[in-house]
Order: sequence, then C-alpha cells, then structure tokens
Amino acid sequence: MSEDLATISIDEARSLGQRLLLAAGYSQPHARTITDWVVRAQIDECHSHGLYRLISCCELIERGKVDPVATPHVEDRAPAIVRVDACKGISLQAFEAGLPVLAEKARNCGIAALAINNCFHFSALWPEAEMIADKGLVAIATTVSHAWVAPAGGSKPVFGTNPFSFGWPRPGKHPFVFDFATSAIARGDIELHRRTGTPLPQGTAIDADGAPTTDAEAAVDGAMLTFGGHKGSALSTMIELIAGPLIGDMTSAESIAFDDDAKVVPLHGELIIALDPASFAGQAMAADNLKRGEALFDAIEGQGARLPSARRYMARTRNQKSGTMPVKQNVLEELRTRAARLDTR
Amino acid sequence: MSEDLATISIDEARSLGQRLLLAAGYSQPHARTITDWVVRAQIDECHSHGLYRLISCCELIERGKVDPVATPHVEDRAPAIVRVDACKGISLQAFEAGLPVLAEKARNCGIAALAINNCFHFSALWPEAEMIADKGLVAIATTVSHAWVAPAGGSKPVFGTNPFSFGWPRPGKHPFVFDFATSAIARGDIELHRRTGTPLPQGTAIDADGAPTTDAEAAVDGAMLTFGGHKGSALSTMIELIAGPLIGDMTSAESIAFDDDAKVVPLHGELIIALDPASFAGQAMAADNLKRGEALFDAIEGQGARLPSARRYMARTRNQKSGTMPVKQNVLEELRTRAARLDTR
Repeated sequence: MSEDLATISIDEARSLGQRLLLAAGYSQPHARTITDWVVRAQIDECHSHGLYRLISCCELIERGKVDPVATPHVEDRAPAIVRVDACKGISLQAFEAGLPVLAEKARNCGIAALAINNCFHFSALWPEAEMIADKGLVAIATTVSHAWVAPAGGSKPVFGTNPFSFGWPRPGKHPFVFDFATSAIARGDIELHRRTGTPLPQGTAIDADGAPTTDAEAAVDGAMLTFGGHKGSALSTMIELIAGPLIGDMTSAESIAFDDDAKVVPLHGELIIALDPASFAGQAMAADNLKRGEALFDAIEGQGARLPSARRYMARTRNQKSGTMPVKQNVLEELRTRAARLDTR
Repeated sequence: MSEDLATISIDEARSLGQRLLLAAGYSQPHARTITDWVVRAQIDECHSHGLYRLISCCELIERGKVDPVATPHVEDRAPAIVRVDACKGISLQAFEAGLPVLAEKARNCGIAALAINNCFHFSALWPEAEMIADKGLVAIATTVSHAWVAPAGGSKPVFGTNPFSFGWPRPGKHPFVFDFATSAIARGDIELHRRTGTPLPQGTAIDADGAPTTDAEAAVDGAMLTFGGHKGSALSTMIELIAGPLIGDMTSAESIAFDDDAKVVPLHGELIIALDPASFAGQAMAADNLKRGEALFDAIEGQGARLPSARRYMARTRNQKSGTMPVKQNVLEELRTRAARLDTR
C-alpha cells in the first residue's frame, strides 16, 4: 500500500463524500454526518478515521447489516438519561440527535448520560468528546468493539479495543481531549504487520496458547493484550460493562458473534457522560476552576511534555488556513475513480 | 520492619480502634467510621489500608491540619449532584453522609455524582465502590493525591497516585470491584524500597534529570511514572481535572503545596459517580443485563484469569468465618502498647 501523500481541497473532499455516500444508498442525513466527521478527521490528519472511511462506508452497505437510511429514535428515559436507538444505522446521526438533549440534561441535572444503542460504529470518539467540551461541559465517552483482546492472566479474546475518551473545556482554546484504545495496539496495526510480515511490538499480543508473540499471524489466531497489564484489563472490563449490559447492548463477544464473519464494523452501544462545571461549583467558581485546569496544563507543557491532541490541533490550524489537506495518494485515487464511475453511469 | 503475621480477633480490633481514636481526639462518628473502614480492609487482608492506619490516624492529629471533630455538611447542588464539605475532617464520615443522597439521586435521575470537598483521605476507594454496588448501582470513584508523578514525556511531578475505582453489582455475589493507582507503583512501595535499599521495578520512576531509574532515593528526588505510558498519563490528567477543579477542589500540586512538608495525608476532593441500571434499561431488562455481565465474568474466569478483588473476597470469607484475621506483628504490638498506655493514664 502506497503511503505517498497527495493534497485535496476541503471543499472537494466534502463534495466527494456527499456524492459517493448518497450514490451508495445512504440517506441525506447519514451522508452529511459521515462526510462531516471523516473530513474533520482528515483535516486533523487523523488518516485512520479520515477520507479512507468513505470507501469503507460505501462497502459496508454491500455487506448488508447496516441500514443506510435508518432514522435514529430519541427516547427520554430519565431526568438525566437520554437513549438514542440508532436502529442499525451508522452511529453519527444518532449522536448528533442525542447531543442537544444530553447537554440540556447535564445543565439541568449537573451530570447526564447519553446511551446510543444498535449503532454501527467506525469513528474515533474524540470528535464527540470535543463537541461536548465545546458546549462548556466535561465529557467521557466509551464503546466496546469486537472481542479480539484477552484479559490479563488469560489467553482468549474477550474484550474489544474498547476506546476511552475524555474532553475538558478550555476557555478561548481547543478543549483538552484524549481518546485511546485500551488494547495495547490498534487492530488495524496488527493487520498492517500481518500484510508486511513485520514483527509486532513486544507485549502487544499472545498466540493461541497464550504465549507472548510478535508474529502478527499468530496474534490473529491468538489475542491482543490490553495496555498497562492488569490495570488496562480492569478498565477494559469496565467499558464492556458500562457500554454493553448497563445500557442494554452487546458486549464485544456478542458483537463479533453477531458479525458472523461478515467483517462489518461492530454493531454495539456507546455510553457518553457529560458533567456541568457550573452545577458543581456555581457559575463564577466554574470559571475560576477552568483557570485552575489551565495551571495543570501549563505544568505539563511547561516541562516539555505534550498534551494529547496537540498534534491534531496543529494540523487543523495549518489545513484550515490553506483550505487543503494531505491525504494518502491511493485513497484519493480510489475516491476519484469511484466518483468518475458515477459520472459515466 | 518485621513482616511476621500475628492474629487478632475482629472484635478486639474494633474495640482497639474505637478506644485509640477517641483517646486521640476524634469525635465518636469519626472514630466509628475510621474503625469500620480499617477493620474492613484488614478482614480483606489489605494490610496497607488496614489496622496500621489506626496508628497513622492518631499521629495525624498531632501534626495539626486535620479537624478530628469536623461535622460534614451535605449540600444539594442540583437534581443529580450532591456535595459534601468534609470541613477538613477525614473523608469517611463525609462519604457516609453523602451516600444515601447519591443513591436516591441516581435512582431518580439515572446517573448522579457525589463531590466530597476539603477531606483528608487515607483510605482505599474500593469500599466506596463496593458500598454503592451493594445498593444495585454502578460506581466510579476517583481522587487526586500529592504531586509525585510525572506526565508521559515529562520529568517533573504533577500528578498524584490518582486512584480510579469501579463497582458493578452482581446478584447474589460480591460486586465486581477494582481500584488501582494510575501511578506505576504505590508511593508506599517507593518508601519501602528506599528503606531496604532494594531496586525499584523497571519503568516505575525517573530521577531529577528525567532519566529512568531503579534507585528509590533518586526516585524521591525525581518523580514516579504513570502506569501504561501516555494512556495512563492521560487518565491521570483526567482524574486531576474531575476530582480537582471540576468540583472546586485542589489538584495534587496544590494539595502538596498546602501540606508544606507536614507529611499529612492529602487534603483534597473526591468525585464519585453512580449509575442506575434500571433507569437505562427498565427494571426487567436491568436484571437481564446484570446476567449478561455474568457471562463476561465467566469468560474471564473460565480461561483461568482472575477478577480483581477475588483475593480480597476469599480472605474476607475465611476471616469472617473464623472471627479473626492476620495482622502484622509489629502493628499489633504498637496498637496494644498504645492501648496499655491508655489503661495506665
């Protein structure tokens, strides 16, 4: 796979996304949200969740399972709980439908949760954490995936890559946001190492007998490991529980069984929690407290350590200024080829 | 320090605790809660948070700062937020005062948070997660500590050992509970290695220049590291923010500055979140969902991996049956010596 980078204008990317997704069968709202989110990731030079996903979203439909015209159903479950049934559509439209209700509930109650059910999920969680933090709220977002990861002390896959994301509002700045997989390595990286025959980093996988391995082929037959040993494993267990059974949705083991080798992105649920600083401390104190958060960031950056997302925000500034962004050459070619095919239909 | 174990009856431990704490100047409610919690930890053979803490709680008073007769003040901040000002007392009475309000709010709203402010904190977080899970709710608890831990890529202490705890109710069984420090090693272990001159495990600390070290002396002048590299560091940053500025309380850096070398346990805040399974899924579904959690635990234990807290629960069963529990010989001697001194006063 060529890793050479080409350049695409943000406008062309938007137009390509809309056209391809509509032609593939997505409804207008799904085409719009998917395009928005993958273009946003590409502007941040987050290639793994960028324009490349337009291709995989089009291919998803061909494999069945995903409903490309599903309309999410918003349900008010409790004063601080909103549930959105994605009805087997892509998660993004469901998130956007639930977000204003989540924010209102968080402001009214001090803390609130959004549970998204029955969604197919391919996106990163940081855009969600960022959108909530942009509303002046603190965000925690988690989701399960497919059972590829063994628990600490075990040998068989039980957990998904189970990401954990967090957002914190920063007055006048991009929010503090992180989003990490609780697996020691990304699933896509295992695949990349398998194709190129290169060894995995130490401590990321075990073979079918539970023995440590750096062989990607053996890791696919065995399991990935969590980051951080038994602590990462505990965290991943928590995510299985709160983004799965707590909200009435599938665990990673149930999701991969449902997939039944169709190799579609996981169908599952997502739990998103929003906390309102003003409810905890009062409006005036909340402003002061956000400033005290800034002292923490200064102490981290002041010693030369980097805040998570710093690289993304730098890319964003650069690319929004130029109106263009880098994209992998082969991804761009594939997108333009698919668009040209539409022109000749 | 002798690690030889003696045996004490649970009744004698309770009586010793009450007597020593009252004599040291704690109010009856503080003496009761502290005794309850340290005896509970000792029954679970969690020596680091067990009877040994009776001695340190008595010594705390001598160093000033802690108010041994403080009455916590409960404040209803929002439909889903309860705040308890511990008024510079030990945290436990504040937690017990806030717990019923937290549980009621979680059942009414679906999710709720308890913020404890201005508390001195020496206990583990797992008892809190367990007490919430015993009420059929899901629990997340976090607190900062003292700035001893450097961020990933940095060299200077910013974070505390910042524990993260979780509880999940299991019908008819002890809840699933974990409680881990986000530091790579416990602060007490650094001290132990310093005293015995033994090397620290690799990857747990850096010296004053930011270089990796296994020398405990150098680690005290430098900093501890988080578990799990940049992911653990991100998690620890989150805990600083949500258990500090979000709830209007000190970060680990502010707490250690306040301590000003008095070497008292940290004065800080604590954030505890409770989620109600029935609010998310409805009463009947919630019961089914808890069973689906059991399938996850079966998949973990079925492959020979251990659930967190399993060892504690085994010790508890054993010790509650016998009515006695193991305790370090030197701790027991110190407690009995202190009690004998009271007899001759």
